Order: sequence, then structure tokens, then C-alpha cells
Amino acid sequence: MKIKPAPGAYDFQLLIKNILAYSLVLEPEREIVYSNKSRYNYHTLNKRIRQLANVLNSLGANGGAPVGVIDYDCHRYLECYFGIPMTGNVLHTVNWRLSPAQILYTIKHAQDKILIVNEDFLPLVEGFIDQIPFVAHIIVTTDNNSAASNAYKSYEHLLLQAADTYDFPDFDEDAVATMFYTTGTTGDPKGVYYTHRQLVLHTFHLAATFGFVGGAAGRMSSDDVYMPLTSMFHVHAWGFPYLATMYSLKQVYTGRFDATTVTELIANEGVTFSHCVPTILQMVLNKADEQQTDLSRWKVVSGGAAMPVALAKRALQMGIDLRASYGMSETCPVICSGYIPLACKDNDIDWQARTRSRTGTWPLFTDMRIVDAQGNDVPKDDTTQGEIVLRAPWLTNGYLYDDVRGAELWTGGYLHTGDVATINERNSIRIADRIKDVIKSGGEWISSIALESFIGQHPWVAETAVVGLPDAQWGERPCALVVPHAGKTLTADILRDHLQQYVNSGELSKWAVPELYKWVDAIPKTSVGKIDKKEIRRSI
Amino acid sequence: MKIKPAPGAYDFQLLIKNILAYSLVLEPEREIVYSNKSRYNYHTLNKRIRQLANVLNSLGANGGAPVGVIDYDCHRYLECYFGIPMTGNVLHTVNWRLSPAQILYTIKHAQDKILIVNEDFLPLVEGFIDQIPFVAHIIVTTDNNSAASNAYKSYEHLLLQAADTYDFPDFDEDAVATMFYTTGTTGDPKGVYYTHRQLVLHTFHLAATFGFVGGAAGRMSSDDVYMPLTSMFHVHAWGFPYLATMYSLKQVYTGRFDATTVTELIANEGVTFSHCVPTILQMVLNKADEQQTDLSRWKVVSGGAAMPVALAKRALQMGIDLRASYGMSETCPVICSGYIPLACKDNDIDWQARTRSRTGTWPLFTDMRIVDAQGNDVPKDDTTQGEIVLRAPWLTNGYLYDDVRGAELWTGGYLHTGDVATINERNSIRIADRIKDVIKSGGEWISSIALESFIGQHPWVAETAVVGLPDAQWGERPCALVVPHAGKTLTADILRDHLQQYVNSGELSKWAVPELYKWVDAIPKTSVGKIDKKEIRRSI
Repeated sequence: MKIKPAPGAYDFQLLIKNILAYSLVLEPEREIVYSNKSRYNYHTLNKRIRQLANVLNSLGANGGAPVGVIDYDCHRYLECYFGIPMTGNVLHTVNWRLSPAQILYTIKHAQDKILIVNEDFLPLVEGFIDQIPFVAHIIVTTDNNSAASNAYKSYEHLLLQAADTYDFPDFDEDAVATMFYTTGTTGDPKGVYYTHRQLVLHTFHLAATFGFVGGAAGRMSSDDVYMPLTSMFHVHAWGFPYLATMYSLKQVYTGRFDATTVTELIANEGVTFSHCVPTILQMVLNKADEQQTDLSRWKVVSGGAAMPVALAKRALQMGIDLRASYGMSETCPVICSGYIPLACKDNDIDWQARTRSRTGTWPLFTDMRIVDAQGNDVPKDDTTQGEIVLRAPWLTNGYLYDDVRGAELWTGGYLHTGDVATINERNSIRIADRIKDVIKSGGEWISSIALESFIGQHPWVAETAVVGLPDAQWGERPCALVVPHAGKTLTADILRDHLQQYVNSGELSKWAVPELYKWVDAIPKTSVGKIDKKEIRRSI
Repeated sequence: MKIKPAPGAYDFQLLIKNILAYSLVLEPEREIVYSNKSRYNYHTLNKRIRQLANVLNSLGANGGAPVGVIDYDCHRYLECYFGIPMTGNVLHTVNWRLSPAQILYTIKHAQDKILIVNEDFLPLVEGFIDQIPFVAHIIVTTDNNSAASNAYKSYEHLLLQAADTYDFPDFDEDAVATMFYTTGTTGDPKGVYYTHRQLVLHTFHLAATFGFVGGAAGRMSSDDVYMPLTSMFHVHAWGFPYLATMYSLKQVYTGRFDATTVTELIANEGVTFSHCVPTILQMVLNKADEQQTDLSRWKVVSGGAAMPVALAKRALQMGIDLRASYGMSETCPVICSGYIPLACKDNDIDWQARTRSRTGTWPLFTDMRIVDAQGNDVPKDDTTQGEIVLRAPWLTNGYLYDDVRGAELWTGGYLHTGDVATINERNSIRIADRIKDVIKSGGEWISSIALESFIGQHPWVAETAVVGLPDAQWGERPCALVVPHAGKTLTADILRDHLQQYVNSGELSKWAVPELYKWVDAIPKTSVGKIDKKEIRRSI
């Protein structure tokens, strides 16, 4: 039954401007800190976002214009998170860790009308400037008001000249707010995109999930001091800057990552909540050990890669309230996070480390399934592997201008993550592998990641990568690339003996132990530092 | 910029079925307790809701059918909160505290196709059964499987015979999910209605507001034990049953209100979160005092009427984590709740009682304004009065089948609450009066509620009500009806002398002291127990 609203009833659209509006309600005097370079409160943030809106309009971006940002994590980036979509334009967060050719590809594909570029990246942009004639304006950001920007417009100068009032318009909540590109190991980067409605609902979910869900892991609150440790070009820094801004948390942005700066900011600014990939956490823990930084008030959500149990244990021992989470470029991103029932709060640290390093449990309004090749749900035995597929209100509706790959993503009406996982009876999942990397051998699936973890625990192994190779009898068989530590000579027998302990303990099937080993000097990596299994398979 | 979704992309609608789905994820073994009468876990709740859905379908309610419920607060009512809207039908929560004539009016106006009636209310329904021929089925609920339902279908018997599987359909999130009636002191009851989208967003807001917002008041979490103390027919019991179910909280329902049962349930079931009107809180505190019940783990959100500071102080002294909130039938309902900044956590108990009894601060995605008669925002001086008007994603879009009063409600694109309030510089509001009860005297507004509070503090005053009467010189002047305590003789001079202290302390303007007093035996009340100022003005 539908009823026509009364004349005058306000048709409330879920727009990012409403997130910003609330930043002035609870604690607007709190600060947004940019490393040791600047700090201002939410009143100033709101004014500067309005100035940015006027600047965008004056440069002809009056809605629907993609605006690319190439900058470090800072208050200006936060301003772009709001000012660009709130004027109806589209924030394109450019991944400056890609190769110049890939960055050029994404700017051309997005057809950015304006680029906001940190002066450090100007040489990069100037390297392909003749190939982006559709970019009407380049705005340069700088930390020190240097004169480097003579040839271009300066972000700060433009803001200074702009009015700090702006009446942000209403429009359809299904308007696109953000876009960015994800690189697989195959094909061109793919553009994903999110609407105002999706980002708003994702923000609601973060507040509800990390604020309301209890258990033994620490809850986030509006009194936390927030510092992201994942890049702001990377899936909206997991969406937390929107959450932090909505509730006027004190926010701390680091600029270029540097472990010393990070530990100093944690100590000096009283940071209590961060999110990062395991590699970054490791670097921060090392530095904190060195500097005797107290991390016992720090809540950390890890993601982006499997959390090693040993690293989780080390973090817990240092007093960090750690839990893993899961997401991807296509999912806005957070679609899983650790839930530790209150009843398990006194379980020992090894249990905590194992449990908190699991991928976690899906949030409200997420219909997540782990399905086998026939699309049937796998049993909740934490052993049977299946692909994670899901529905949620905040998933990309496809790939930009690419309905073929978009339709593949959404095969059967569920978003296919390409990740293989198991699920236990408490609805906690654990990712085993990428579906394209899982080794299909004799009708069973062998996780290449599990093998890498076991092989990597041999003290002489510096690094390893496992791929499946075609096999006439079994379909595929695992092959391990291994980088030995300097001066050590490994053999297949040594590693097979080493792996036997995991067979004995039941953690590894006997038939999953690789016969093939290759000794190499380095493991091929992609531009973002992931193991390039496609290249490995090609080269073997 | 809008982009067409890829083929197959799932168009996620915000439906109540997604709230229920999550109840099986975190702690599905937790129980829903109905007083000392029954208890079952979330697996059973889910099965019974599916059985109810099959029953509704078998009785011809296949979408769009209003289904009226007349019952006490219990697990069955919770089942109706889900099963009725999830089948696309509309839950009509019937207010059984209205007069029989008003109840009949609402059932006729709603055109209920099915009535679910507790056997205690059968005589009421049978009293007007010949006037509701459009009701095709009456289903009777009973706590003791008594035979009283021979003439009607029994809820439990129907469920027993129904299959416990059901594939809840997708449909438009703007479909109406619930409706109920609100009675003012003028005119017929008005029907308000809420869509699936609105109830979902209100549930998100409750999770975010009561889970994420920090400060000195205790936050709710998924580990709370929930017991509503506001009727389930009253604005979805403030929406908390949806929140509690989503996160599989243990829930406790009381049945007919009885203070002894309530204190026993708090103690025996470990209740940690409730919401209620001040009168109910007072009754529970009295009983807890008598029975020495420990309430120190109890978080309470009060609303529905102004929280007296003295009652707030008493609750705080008993260790209750109390805060006021605000809402109305037209607002789903929660649109304000107390925010106590962390910086004020050690302020003394009198400060806490004053602050926690304030109406509070609006939540995320609520555009609340306090406006004068010209529609301009009043200054944040906590003195200037104005009407509360607002926009939010969860407000009724009008009144059922009454566009005239719906358009009045939404004058100027804002929902007009009819409540007069002040606001301080921390965005905390305090309701002063109903706009129709405020006394407009010499161009200024006098709060009738403030006058009632001051007069009521004279020890000889049992009860009082203040209304504005037409005055040739001032427009209106206040007139106080007063019920003296037995054996006491009050005079206008005594009360004017009494009021002088509030003039001296600056709490009351000199010109606001009434000249007119009337001594009466009782104050006229409406059917729901509110002071009937319309009747008072008519009778004076």
C-alpha cells in the first residue's frame, strides 16, 4: 500500500550534506588536525567546504562534473569528500600509487573536468598533460603556500577569495557522489561508483556496527579521537571520515605515511581509533616498541589483507583493542568485522588472537552467503570453502561504463567478491583465498594462502607465493615459489618435512602438500604491492 | 550524475524483513521473555513470524490489508510488528486506552480487514461488531489457551497449523508498514503512517544515536537486556523493539503494567535498558524503594512528558542512568535525546538532574529549528521561545486520508510539532509548552507549564492547570485552576506571594504572574489522562 504524501511534506533524500550538517551539533569546537602542519575546528571545516563549493561553481563545475583529487591524507582531502559531492559533482579519488600510465588511464576514463593536485604530484600530471585536454582546471595544493603553483590555481588562494556561505541544493539521493578505480591483475583498472544514498547508509552502518554491537571488542563512540591509516584515495578511507565528521570527533590526518609521525600523533593528540592494513600496523608496532609509545587506549580495525595471528597477538599484548574487518573496492567497503561475544571476553590471548584475526561477521542489512560452485550455501563447519557473495545497500551497482564486467560482478543478482571463505556456526567467516588463486585439485579446493602461511613459518623462508599449475591427473597442483633467507639452502624435502606437522595437526590435508618448489630471488608484485599470481603463473 | 546499474545489480530496498534477518546473526539463542508466562529464542521468533505470515495469507491478507492489533505488550505483539508489514500488509496498532467510540472510529477509518484481539478486549469489540462488517476475520489471543475463543479463530491454533517457512517478498521501500491514531483535544483522531524505509532509517538512527553518541550518559549496546515500559500500541514502543530485535538483544515484555511485576522482571531477568513516561518511572521507583530492588544497572530513556527535575534527581540517586528524550506520534517518534558532554561527567547531581531532564538534542539527519511566529530561528539563549519545526527521514508524510490537516502539519515544508521550546548554545532544547496552550500576553509568550510548575510547588496545592483567557488590553492573560489539598483554603494573595520568589530569582517575569485563580475540585482530563485545556477554556 502506498499513500501520496500530503502537500508540503518534505521528501527527505539521503544526501552527504546531512552528514556534514550534524558536525555542528554535538562538539563543533573539536579539531581536525593535519599532522604538525595545521588544525582548525568544525566551524572552520564547514566554512572551508562552502568556500570550496563556491570555487567549484566559479570554475564551471555545477553538478555532474568529475573532479579528481591527487593528494596525501589531510584536511583538504576531507573538504573534498564533502564539497565535491555536495555540489552535485563527483569526487574521483585518484590512486597515486598506480603507475603513471594507469593514473592517466583512470583520469581519461573518468573524464575529470578539474584536478586538485598536491604539488608533489605536479610533475606526474605534467608528464601526461597533453593527453588530458578535457581537464579544464588544475588546482594545486601545498602545505607551505610555496610559489610552486604560479602556473596553476592555488587551492588556498581560491578558497581565500571565495564566500564562505553556500546553500547546498537538494537532489536525488541516487546521484553519483564518488568514483575511483580498482586494479586487478587482469585488464584495465575498473571504475566503481557510489551514490549519496549508498554513502549515507554505509555511514549509518559504521555508526551502528562499531557503536552499538557489543561483545568483548571495544566499541567506537563520538568521544574517540580518529586517525585513519589507510589512504583517503582508497575506498573513502573505509568510510570512517564520513562517520567521524558526522559526530564531530577530533580527527587527525597524517599526510605521507611515516611511522614516527604516526606514533607521535597517537601520543600527542590522544588518538584512540584507527584502521589500517596489517603491514602498516606492523610498522607502527615496531616504532612504538622503539619509542615506548603507550598504545593501550588504541582501538584498531585491520583489513585489506589477512591479519596474521602472530601480529594480532603482538598487538593484543601491547594493549591494543584489535579486530579484523573485510571489504573491497566494490563494497564501499566495510562488509565484515570481528564480533567477539561477551561470553568469550576472558578467553586466553591465543584464542583472542585467533578469533580477532578472523575476517569477521557481516553487518546489518547485508545478505552474505558462502556458496559452492553450484550456488548452494556451504555448511557452517569452518572447513568447506565457498565464494563470498552478497547483497547490501552500499555495493557498487556495476563498473563505470562497462556493463559487461558489471554484469559479471552481479551474476545471479549477488555481488561476487571473488573471495573464497569458510564460515563457522557463529556466523564468523574466514577468508581462505581469492577464487582465481585457489588451487582446484581432484575436485577439492586448496587455499594458496594457507599454504603460503605454513611454508612461511619455516625459519629459512623469507617469502613465498603458491599458485596452481595445470596437471593432467588432478586438474591443478600447487607450486610454491620460495625466497630463502640469505645463506640458507632449502630443498623440497626440507619444506615437505616442515609441512608434515600441519598435516599431523589436521590443519592441512595430506594431498595438499606441494610436490613442486621453485627457488627465486624475489616474488613478483603488482603496482599496489600484492603478489602478482597472474605473472607467476605466466612465468613458470 | 546518475548511472544506470549494471544488469543483475540488486536494487536493495530498505525493508523491515532485513531488520529481522539480522536477528539470527549475532546472538540468536537469546530469549524473548513474556513476563512469567513464556520465553523462547530468536530461532522460534523467526519461525513464528513465518507462521503468522502464512496465516495472514491464508485469511486473504496478501498485501495492502490493514490488520489491527488490540493486545498487551507481549511476544505476540512483537511478532505482529514484523509478520504484518513483512507480508506487505499494514500493522494498525490500536490504542485500547481510547474510549470505545474512538476505538471504533479508528478501526472504521483504517478499514481493518483482520483484527487480532486479546480475549480481554473481546467484549469491547463485540460491543460494536455490527458496525465493522469490513473486518473479515477476528483472531483471538490469550495467555492461557482458554476456550474463550470458541467463536473466533485462535492465534496460537492458527500458528500451530501453519508452515514455519516463508519467503518474504521484496517490494518498494515506500510501502506503508504501520499506521495508528493520535488524539488531540480537538477533532477526530488523526491517522499517521510510516513506510518500511522510514522505520528502517529510524532503527538505524536509534542504533547510531544510543550506541555511538558518547558523553556522560550510558550508551546502549547489543548486550543490553531490553524491556519497554511504553505501550507497544504507542508509536512502535518508540521504535526500540525493532532495534532490539535487529541485534538479538534479550527482550522482556511485561503484559499489563504492574509495578511489582516490573521490578521483579528487572531483578530476575537482568534488565538494563527501558523507556517510559515520567509517571511510570515514578511508580517503578516507589516500588523499587519498597522492595529494595537494585536499579543501578538500569539505563532509562524518558519521554512523552516533561521529566520533573526532582524525579530525575531521585532516579540518579538510585543509580539509574537516566536521560530524557522527545518525540510524538508524527515523528516515528524519537527526534531528541539528552546529550551530556563527557567534559561535564563530574558535574554535581543537581546539574545532572537539570541537564538530563532537558528535552535534549536532535539526532543525525534531523533538521530541527526553533522558530518564532515569522518563521525565523530564535537565538540560542535558552530564553526566547519558538515552535519546534523539523525535517527528518522518518516523519509521517501526512494524516491518513486527510490532506487538509496533513498540509497544515507540513506548512512551509517543515513538520510543525506544535511544541514551544527554547534552545541553548549547546543545541540542547527544553520544551516550554504546547503552542496552543502558551499564553500570548502583550506580545510575549508565557509558558502555562512553567506557571503550573511554580504554583504546584506551594505545599497546599494538590493540582493545577493554567490557561490563557482573552483580555481586551493584553490579548490574553493567564488564569490558574487550582485544586487545594483537603482542608486547606487558598487565596489569590497567598499564591501571588508564593510566585513572587520566582520573580525575585528571575525564573518568572513579573507580568506573567496571574491575577485570576479559580478553586476547583478536579482538573478536567482527556481520555489519555492529559489536562484538557480546551475543556477548561470552554468551561471558564
